[in-house]
Amino acid sequence: MRTPETWSVRDAPEEITVYEVGARDGLQNEQTVVPVEVKAEFIERLVDAGARAVELTSFVRGDLVPRMGDAEQLMARLSLPADVRSVALTPNLRGVQRALECGIREVAIFASATETFSQRNLNCSIDESLARFEPVVALARANGVAVRAYVSMCWGDPWEGVVPLEAVVRVGCRMMDLGASELSLGDTIGVATPGHVVALLDAFGAAGVARDRLAVHFHDTYGQALANAAAAIGAGVRIVDTSAGGLGGCPFAKSASGNLATEDLLWHLHGQGVRTGIDLAALVETSEWLAAHLGRPSPSRVVQALTR
Amino acid sequence: MRTPETWSVRDAPEEITVYEVGARDGLQNEQTVVPVEVKAEFIERLVDAGARAVELTSFVRGDLVPRMGDAEQLMARLSLPADVRSVALTPNLRGVQRALECGIREVAIFASATETFSQRNLNCSIDESLARFEPVVALARANGVAVRAYVSMCWGDPWEGVVPLEAVVRVGCRMMDLGASELSLGDTIGVATPGHVVALLDAFGAAGVARDRLAVHFHDTYGQALANAAAAIGAGVRIVDTSAGGLGGCPFAKSASGNLATEDLLWHLHGQGVRTGIDLAALVETSEWLAAHLGRPSPSRVVQALTR
Repeated sequence: MRTPETWSVRDAPEEITVYEVGARDGLQNEQTVVPVEVKAEFIERLVDAGARAVELTSFVRGDLVPRMGDAEQLMARLSLPADVRSVALTPNLRGVQRALECGIREVAIFASATETFSQRNLNCSIDESLARFEPVVALARANGVAVRAYVSMCWGDPWEGVVPLEAVVRVGCRMMDLGASELSLGDTIGVATPGHVVALLDAFGAAGVARDRLAVHFHDTYGQALANAAAAIGAGVRIVDTSAGGLGGCPFAKSASGNLATEDLLWHLHGQGVRTGIDLAALVETSEWLAAHLGRPSPSRVVQALTR
Repeated sequence: MRTPETWSVRDAPEEITVYEVGARDGLQNEQTVVPVEVKAEFIERLVDAGARAVELTSFVRGDLVPRMGDAEQLMARLSLPADVRSVALTPNLRGVQRALECGIREVAIFASATETFSQRNLNCSIDESLARFEPVVALARANGVAVRAYVSMCWGDPWEGVVPLEAVVRVGCRMMDLGASELSLGDTIGVATPGHVVALLDAFGAAGVARDRLAVHFHDTYGQALANAAAAIGAGVRIVDTSAGGLGGCPFAKSASGNLATEDLLWHLHGQGVRTGIDLAALVETSEWLAAHLGRPSPSRVVQALTR
């Protein structure tokens, strides 16, 4: 079978926005460094397949994150349709300046829900990171550029363990207060389960954040990503972050911890009659093509099943 | 994190019966042949970890299914507690006679929802297979032995494509009429999605089969197994078939199509405060131990995450 049978579900949404993070979150966490022309073709193929929200790259220091050191060259190669949300990660003021020079339409920032990961990943406290984002968001918005905000470690932290709901809501709400228009809640280590997912969504609701501002971002480290996405959708979330082919986690590496694979989510959604606008077959072909460049099979089960 | 945080969910069941198929469905579909003493230790470890429903082996012809050719030797080695459902697959009268001689307490039979798979797997039509099961069930029940009935290809067939709900219900109900006490609905090729899962459960309900007689048996070929199990549980199913470590599907083989991994289901259930009686850490240790005998890592994401 090349596509799932469609069995409509009562209360299922008509449409879900799939926010494609493969070119950024995915490739940034792959062992193989992909040449800029392959990245550009990958993104164009994603858009041709119907992706309408795509994270392109990260404007970081190339000496610190070599995989993303080609942001300007990549942007120069791309010519994306106006109806595509094309987003770049910009961790600081210099990043957003560079992104604006490239004509970016939307930027993303990221903070941690826990102090330990903030120190380890951003090298500063949560408060310091938020203070750093203030001029980033201000500059973006002054240029008519929307801001997406990520919160990582929302459901568990490898050093701190349990992450209180209040801690996540506090960080998320402060980013919204700065001027972000969308909040992506990340299960960075993949430990969440549905009751916890819904509890956090409800905590944001109680704090006044509307459901349509929330996205969910699950990693499949414990095999829970799709079931958690289903629970979030059941609770009213309409934006789900995924990576084509499950990029970012190699099934042959001990550190496998990739994003939810776009194809696996599409099978689940299309099977329920939920529209995504993405052509599954074209996406599978794209992931297979990229896997050849990465020199290993895709960890997406759907890609594996359909390319046998 | 070694165990999921517990976040209770309203309407979640207090308990789920995990029916462990690793020693039979799992090992039968592994490339490596496992010695009988390893199989016996595997089953004893499963029971020690808390498994209370375990499929042990299959009484088939050893010349046709070499991996299961040691059923008598295995049974002779086992001494399982009386509160453990210990089940053997018995495809025909000779099989159930052999199983009874070994003191089996419960047997399982299997039919296909589609004619093509019936011919290919059982070498006979659906009607012929059901006629063959009549004396099997009669002999089992005359000896006070319960019968579990599997239906395969319930949500899709590689040759026939769409499988009408009525076709599945017809086969399932005929097996219940023969005297089976539990019906396990198998997504043999892993293509189901939640709307279709619930539609089939409802069709059985409309045909008079109580929910507590139904089990679900998902393969993870398309990455849908856990989300489908969650949907079935949400619709009232309380028995889920899984295999320890995801046995039966090797992540390094192109034909990867294993059962839902017991550990991945446990993470999902325990995280919601649903009891299974199984100790996750002990089960992971068992799967890691068996993976060493199989010469490859477990495809279970939870096993991979916890044994890094």
